[in-house]
Amino acid sequence: MYYEDFQVGDTSKFGAYEVTESEVIEFASKYDPQFFHLDNEAAKDSLFGGLCASGWHTCAMFMRMLVDRFPPDNGSLGSPGINNLRWLKPVYPGYVLSVKDKVKTCRLSESKPGVGLVCMNYEVVNQHDLTVMTVESNAFFKCRNS
Amino acid sequence: MYYEDFQVGDTSKFGAYEVTESEVIEFASKYDPQFFHLDNEAAKDSLFGGLCASGWHTCAMFMRMLVDRFPPDNGSLGSPGINNLRWLKPVYPGYVLSVKDKVKTCRLSESKPGVGLVCMNYEVVNQHDLTVMTVESNAFFKCRNS
Repeated sequence: MYYEDFQVGDTSKFGAYEVTESEVIEFASKYDPQFFHLDNEAAKDSLFGGLCASGWHTCAMFMRMLVDRFPPDNGSLGSPGINNLRWLKPVYPGYVLSVKDKVKTCRLSESKPGVGLVCMNYEVVNQHDLTVMTVESNAFFKCRNS
Repeated sequence: MYYEDFQVGDTSKFGAYEVTESEVIEFASKYDPQFFHLDNEAAKDSLFGGLCASGWHTCAMFMRMLVDRFPPDNGSLGSPGINNLRWLKPVYPGYVLSVKDKVKTCRLSESKPGVGLVCMNYEVVNQHDLTVMTVESNAFFKCRNS
Protein backbone atom coordinates (compact mmCIF):
# COMPACT_ATOMS: atom_id res chain seq x y z
CA MET A 1 0.00 0.00 0.00
CA TYR A 2 1.37 3.38 -1.02
CA TYR A 3 0.06 6.86 -0.33
CA GLU A 4 -1.73 6.96 -3.68
CA ASP A 5 -3.73 3.84 -2.74
CA PHE A 6 -5.76 5.77 -0.14
CA GLN A 7 -8.84 7.85 -1.00
CA VAL A 8 -10.88 9.87 1.50
CA GLY A 9 -14.04 7.93 2.40
CA ASP A 10 -12.68 4.48 1.49
CA THR A 11 -13.75 1.79 3.97
CA SER A 12 -12.73 -1.78 4.62
CA LYS A 13 -12.98 -4.54 7.21
CA PHE A 14 -10.22 -6.98 8.00
CA GLY A 15 -8.66 -9.24 10.62
CA ALA A 16 -9.82 -12.07 12.89
CA TYR A 17 -7.88 -12.07 16.17
CA GLU A 18 -9.09 -14.52 18.78
CA VAL A 19 -8.72 -13.25 22.33
CA THR A 20 -7.59 -16.02 24.68
CA GLU A 21 -7.51 -16.05 28.46
CA SER A 22 -3.88 -17.16 28.47
CA GLU A 23 -2.77 -14.28 26.25
CA VAL A 24 -4.82 -11.75 28.25
CA ILE A 25 -3.08 -12.89 31.43
CA GLU A 26 0.37 -13.11 29.80
CA PHE A 27 0.18 -9.54 28.45
CA ALA A 28 -1.23 -8.15 31.69
CA SER A 29 1.38 -9.93 33.81
CA LYS A 30 4.09 -8.05 31.93
CA TYR A 31 2.50 -4.70 31.28
CA ASP A 32 -0.78 -4.12 33.11
CA PRO A 33 -0.96 -6.28 36.26
CA GLN A 34 -4.33 -5.10 37.57
CA PHE A 35 -6.55 -7.81 39.05
CA PHE A 36 -9.33 -7.46 36.44
CA HIS A 37 -6.79 -8.44 33.75
CA LEU A 38 -5.20 -11.28 35.75
CA ASP A 39 -7.71 -13.14 37.91
CA ASN A 40 -11.02 -14.41 36.56
CA GLU A 41 -12.66 -14.86 39.97
CA ALA A 42 -11.60 -11.51 41.41
CA ALA A 43 -12.53 -9.73 38.15
CA LYS A 44 -16.20 -10.71 38.66
CA ASP A 45 -16.37 -8.05 41.38
CA SER A 46 -14.79 -5.34 39.20
CA LEU A 47 -16.53 -2.72 37.04
CA PHE A 48 -15.95 -5.10 34.11
CA GLY A 49 -17.75 -8.13 35.55
CA GLY A 50 -15.08 -10.59 34.47
CA LEU A 51 -11.52 -11.06 33.25
CA CYS A 52 -10.86 -8.71 30.33
CA ALA A 53 -7.91 -7.65 28.21
CA SER A 54 -5.76 -4.65 29.08
CA GLY A 55 -6.75 -1.74 26.86
CA TRP A 56 -3.14 -1.65 25.66
CA HIS A 57 -3.38 -5.33 24.79
CA THR A 58 -6.41 -4.51 22.64
CA CYS A 59 -4.28 -1.82 20.97
CA ALA A 60 -1.53 -4.38 20.39
CA MET A 61 -3.97 -6.89 18.86
CA PHE A 62 -5.40 -4.07 16.70
CA MET A 63 -1.86 -3.23 15.55
CA ARG A 64 -1.17 -6.84 14.60
CA MET A 65 -4.28 -6.89 12.40
CA LEU A 66 -3.17 -3.61 10.84
CA VAL A 67 0.35 -4.86 10.07
CA ASP A 68 -1.05 -8.07 8.60
CA ARG A 69 -3.18 -5.94 6.31
CA PHE A 70 -0.24 -3.72 5.32
CA PRO A 71 2.57 -6.30 5.19
CA PRO A 72 6.18 -5.38 6.00
CA ASP A 73 8.40 -4.15 3.15
CA ASN A 74 5.59 -2.15 1.62
CA GLY A 75 5.12 1.62 1.72
CA SER A 76 4.28 1.91 5.43
CA LEU A 77 6.62 4.24 7.35
CA GLY A 78 5.15 4.21 10.84
CA SER A 79 2.98 6.63 12.76
CA PRO A 80 3.55 9.91 14.61
CA GLY A 81 0.61 9.31 16.93
CA ILE A 82 -3.08 8.79 17.49
CA ASN A 83 -6.08 10.75 18.69
CA ASN A 84 -9.11 9.93 20.79
CA LEU A 85 -8.50 6.32 21.70
CA ARG A 86 -11.65 5.02 23.39
CA TRP A 87 -12.01 1.71 25.19
CA LEU A 88 -15.80 1.47 24.89
CA LYS A 89 -16.47 -2.07 26.09
CA PRO A 90 -14.48 -4.72 27.96
CA VAL A 91 -12.72 -7.23 25.69
CA TYR A 92 -13.34 -10.72 27.06
CA PRO A 93 -11.60 -14.01 26.22
CA GLY A 94 -13.56 -15.73 23.44
CA TYR A 95 -14.05 -12.56 21.45
CA VAL A 96 -12.81 -12.64 17.86
CA LEU A 97 -11.76 -9.11 16.97
CA SER A 98 -11.68 -7.45 13.58
CA VAL A 99 -11.10 -3.91 12.35
CA LYS A 100 -13.26 -1.54 10.33
CA ASP A 101 -11.45 1.42 8.83
CA LYS A 102 -12.36 4.61 7.00
CA VAL A 103 -9.93 7.05 5.38
CA LYS A 104 -10.50 10.48 6.95
CA THR A 105 -7.84 12.69 5.33
CA CYS A 106 -4.79 12.34 3.05
CA ARG A 107 -2.04 14.92 2.56
CA LEU A 108 1.56 15.06 1.36
CA SER A 109 4.17 15.70 4.05
CA GLU A 110 5.58 19.23 3.93
CA SER A 111 8.89 18.23 5.52
CA LYS A 112 9.43 14.76 4.02
CA PRO A 113 9.51 14.64 0.18
CA GLY A 114 7.89 11.54 -1.28
CA VAL A 115 5.93 10.84 1.90
CA GLY A 116 2.21 11.21 2.57
CA LEU A 117 0.24 11.29 5.81
CA VAL A 118 -3.01 9.32 5.98
CA CYS A 119 -5.50 9.80 8.83
CA MET A 120 -7.82 6.85 9.42
CA ASN A 121 -10.78 6.23 11.68
CA TYR A 122 -10.70 2.72 13.08
CA GLU A 123 -13.29 0.66 14.95
CA VAL A 124 -12.34 -2.62 16.62
CA VAL A 125 -15.40 -4.90 16.73
CA ASN A 126 -16.07 -8.38 18.10
CA GLN A 127 -17.72 -11.29 16.26
CA HIS A 128 -21.18 -9.84 17.03
CA ASP A 129 -20.22 -6.44 15.57
CA LEU A 130 -20.04 -4.90 19.05
CA THR A 131 -17.61 -1.96 18.90
CA VAL A 132 -15.09 -2.37 21.72
CA MET A 133 -12.56 0.33 20.76
CA THR A 134 -12.32 3.32 18.46
CA VAL A 135 -9.22 5.24 17.49
CA GLU A 136 -8.14 7.86 14.99
CA SER A 137 -4.63 7.18 13.73
CA ASN A 138 -2.14 9.00 11.53
CA ALA A 139 0.33 7.02 9.45
CA PHE A 140 3.10 7.85 7.01
CA PHE A 141 3.18 6.08 3.64
CA LYS A 142 5.69 6.30 0.82
CA CYS A 143 4.51 7.78 -2.44
CA ARG A 144 4.72 5.31 -5.32
CA ASN A 145 7.94 5.58 -7.36
CA SER A 146 9.49 8.03 -4.90
CA MET B 1 -4.47 6.27 45.58
CA TYR B 2 -8.06 7.41 45.76
CA TYR B 3 -9.84 10.20 43.91
CA GLU B 4 -9.28 12.62 46.78
CA ASP B 5 -5.49 12.12 46.51
CA PHE B 6 -5.34 14.02 43.21
CA GLN B 7 -5.17 17.81 42.98
CA VAL B 8 -5.09 19.81 39.74
CA GLY B 9 -1.52 20.88 39.00
CA ASP B 10 0.18 18.14 41.05
CA THR B 11 3.26 16.73 39.35
CA SER B 12 5.49 13.72 39.92
CA LYS B 13 8.13 11.60 38.23
CA PHE B 14 8.40 7.84 38.59
CA GLY B 15 9.55 4.60 37.00
CA ALA B 16 12.77 3.23 35.52
CA TYR B 17 12.04 0.79 32.68
CA GLU B 18 15.06 -0.42 30.75
CA VAL B 19 14.35 -1.01 27.07
CA THR B 20 16.11 -4.15 25.81
CA GLU B 21 16.63 -5.31 22.25
CA SER B 22 15.24 -8.76 23.09
CA GLU B 23 12.01 -7.33 24.51
CA VAL B 24 11.62 -4.89 21.59
CA ILE B 25 11.88 -7.81 19.15
CA GLU B 26 9.67 -10.11 21.25
CA PHE B 27 6.84 -7.55 21.48
CA ALA B 28 7.12 -6.62 17.81
CA SER B 29 7.17 -10.25 16.68
CA LYS B 30 3.77 -10.74 18.29
CA TYR B 31 2.07 -7.41 17.73
CA ASP B 32 3.92 -5.10 15.34
CA PRO B 33 6.16 -7.09 12.98
CA GLN B 34 7.52 -4.20 10.92
CA PHE B 35 11.20 -4.46 9.98
CA PHE B 36 12.28 -1.37 11.95
CA HIS B 37 11.07 -3.09 15.14
CA LEU B 38 12.56 -6.52 14.30
CA ASP B 39 15.87 -6.26 12.45
CA ASN B 40 18.69 -4.04 13.62
CA GLU B 41 20.54 -4.02 10.28
CA ALA B 42 17.52 -3.35 8.10
CA ALA B 43 16.27 -0.68 10.54
CA LYS B 44 19.35 1.44 9.81
CA ASP B 45 17.80 2.29 6.43
CA SER B 46 14.43 3.24 7.95
CA LEU B 47 13.17 6.69 8.98
CA PHE B 48 14.23 5.74 12.52
CA GLY B 49 17.90 5.01 11.77
CA GLY B 50 17.98 1.86 13.90
CA LEU B 51 15.96 -0.78 15.70
CA CYS B 52 13.32 0.89 17.89
CA ALA B 53 10.37 -0.17 19.99
CA SER B 54 6.85 -0.39 18.61
CA GLY B 55 4.91 2.67 19.72
CA TRP B 56 2.43 0.29 21.34
CA HIS B 57 5.28 -1.35 23.20
CA THR B 58 6.22 2.07 24.57
CA CYS B 59 2.58 2.44 25.68
CA ALA B 60 2.77 -0.97 27.36
CA MET B 61 6.00 -0.05 29.19
CA PHE B 62 4.42 3.27 30.21
CA MET B 63 1.41 1.35 31.57
CA ARG B 64 3.63 -0.95 33.60
CA MET B 65 5.29 2.05 35.24
CA LEU B 66 1.85 3.51 35.94
CA VAL B 67 0.52 0.31 37.53
CA ASP B 68 3.65 0.00 39.65
CA ARG B 69 3.01 3.52 40.90
CA PHE B 70 -0.67 2.79 41.59
CA PRO B 71 -0.45 -0.79 42.88
CA PRO B 72 -3.29 -3.30 42.34
CA ASP B 73 -6.03 -3.49 44.98
CA ASN B 74 -6.01 0.27 45.46
CA GLY B 75 -8.63 2.73 44.20
CA SER B 76 -7.80 2.46 40.48
CA LEU B 77 -10.78 1.43 38.35
CA GLY B 78 -9.37 1.51 34.83
CA SER B 79 -9.59 4.01 32.00
CA PRO B 80 -12.21 4.89 29.40
CA GLY B 81 -9.60 6.15 26.96
CA ILE B 82 -6.83 8.52 26.06
CA ASN B 83 -6.34 11.63 23.94
CA ASN B 84 -3.52 12.85 21.74
CA LEU B 85 -0.98 10.09 22.03
CA ARG B 86 2.23 11.29 20.35
CA TRP B 87 5.27 9.18 19.55
CA LEU B 88 7.76 12.06 19.36
CA LYS B 89 11.08 10.21 19.16
CA PRO B 90 12.15 6.63 18.44
CA VAL B 91 12.67 4.51 21.56
CA TYR B 92 15.95 2.59 21.19
CA PRO B 93 17.28 -0.37 23.20
CA GLY B 94 19.43 0.97 26.05
CA TYR B 95 17.01 3.74 26.95
CA VAL B 96 15.78 3.77 30.54
CA LEU B 97 12.29 5.23 30.51
CA SER B 98 10.48 7.08 33.24
CA VAL B 99 7.21 9.01 33.46
CA LYS B 100 6.43 12.61 34.37
CA ASP B 101 2.81 13.32 35.18
CA LYS B 102 0.66 16.36 35.86
CA VAL B 103 -2.95 16.34 37.03
CA LYS B 104 -5.02 18.27 34.45
CA THR B 105 -8.61 17.93 35.72
CA CYS B 106 -10.57 16.05 38.42
CA ARG B 107 -14.33 15.55 38.53
CA LEU B 108 -16.84 13.20 40.13
CA SER B 109 -18.57 10.77 37.78
CA GLU B 110 -22.17 11.72 37.09
CA SER B 111 -23.24 8.16 36.36
CA LYS B 112 -21.14 6.20 38.86
CA PRO B 113 -21.63 7.17 42.53
CA GLY B 114 -18.43 7.09 44.56
CA VAL B 115 -16.22 7.28 41.48
CA GLY B 116 -14.10 10.17 40.21
CA LEU B 117 -12.48 10.79 36.82
CA VAL B 118 -8.92 12.14 36.79
CA CYS B 119 -7.34 13.50 33.59
CA MET B 120 -3.54 13.42 33.58
CA ASN B 121 -0.89 14.71 31.18
CA TYR B 122 1.97 12.25 30.90
CA GLU B 123 5.42 12.52 29.36
CA VAL B 124 7.60 9.46 28.86
CA VAL B 125 11.28 10.49 28.97
CA ASN B 126 14.56 8.63 28.61
CA GLN B 127 17.56 8.79 30.95
CA HIS B 128 18.69 12.04 29.31
CA ASP B 129 15.28 13.66 29.84
CA LEU B 130 14.47 13.39 26.13
CA THR B 131 10.68 13.23 25.76
CA VAL B 132 9.83 10.23 23.57
CA MET B 133 6.05 10.08 24.07
CA THR B 134 3.27 12.28 25.42
CA VAL B 135 -0.26 11.25 26.22
CA GLU B 136 -3.31 12.64 27.95
CA SER B 137 -5.16 9.92 29.84
CA ASN B 138 -8.43 9.66 31.73
CA ALA B 139 -8.72 7.25 34.64
CA PHE B 140 -11.42 6.29 37.10
CA PHE B 141 -10.59 6.20 40.82
CA LYS B 142 -12.73 5.20 43.78
CA CYS B 143 -13.60 7.89 46.27
CA ARG B 144 -12.24 7.19 49.72
CA ASN B 145 -14.75 5.45 52.05
CA SER B 146 -17.25 4.94 49.24
